[in-house]
Amino acid sequence: MSESQDVLAANDVFYRAFMEGDFAAMDGLWAVDAPVACIHPGWFTLTGRTVVIESWRAILRNPPSVLVSEARAHVMGASAFVTCVETVAGTALVATNIFANENGAWRMVHHQAGHAAQTLDVAPDASSSIH
Amino acid sequence: MSESQDVLAANDVFYRAFMEGDFAAMDGLWAVDAPVACIHPGWFTLTGRTVVIESWRAILRNPPSVLVSEARAHVMGASAFVTCVETVAGTALVATNIFANENGAWRMVHHQAGHAAQTLDVAPDASSSIH
Repeated sequence: MSESQDVLAANDVFYRAFMEGDFAAMDGLWAVDAPVACIHPGWFTLTGRTVVIESWRAILRNPPSVLVSEARAHVMGASAFVTCVETVAGTALVATNIFANENGAWRMVHHQAGHAAQTLDVAPDASSSIH
Repeated sequence: MSESQDVLAANDVFYRAFMEGDFAAMDGLWAVDAPVACIHPGWFTLTGRTVVIESWRAILRNPPSVLVSEARAHVMGASAFVTCVETVAGTALVATNIFANENGAWRMVHHQAGHAAQTLDVAPDASSSIH
């Protein structure tokens, strides 16, 4: 597989663990050596592996159904990020997932998801959004 | 300066260009060789340097006042990400900014900002948020 495909496979592992409420798989995906952070929708930033993993432990008790689409991997040497759309109960969220290659495996270092309100065919218009 | 300080300095360049509506500085900050994407609040993902830079050209015509706080840099070799809070007109947004080191300079490769609705002292509770 190409590096991009490997990163997308790690992204798939993330969403599978998320939807299946598989805490062990989620814990195993997050980086051990690289710095870890996470921004859940509407939350402020969680920083550090312990607090991030504990947030997932709580969330995975009631896993949602998530449809993932438009996943694109962007590889930068030993790091990479994926952008994708998460559709949860008909609501679209946009996500950034950052990965680091640790000993040959792509491990997650950061996740941010937030609500998407506008569609791509809306032209950029500074007067109608905060930025 | 340490690598983290260099990354935070690049993060400052981003917000200064943003607030001052300085398109040349904004254009100059974004990576040329590394892959580029951007998720403005409420938008879907913009992918590729041309479309991202054009979105900033439109936004910078009417630059907002942004108070940046809680910036933290996380360096992973030749890549790094910063999480921070943007306060715009009393509204808190949380941002992820990804940088790549290109020829010794930290250049931006990705920005995502989204609204923060909860405070950090709200315990993770899957029943009250989408995830």
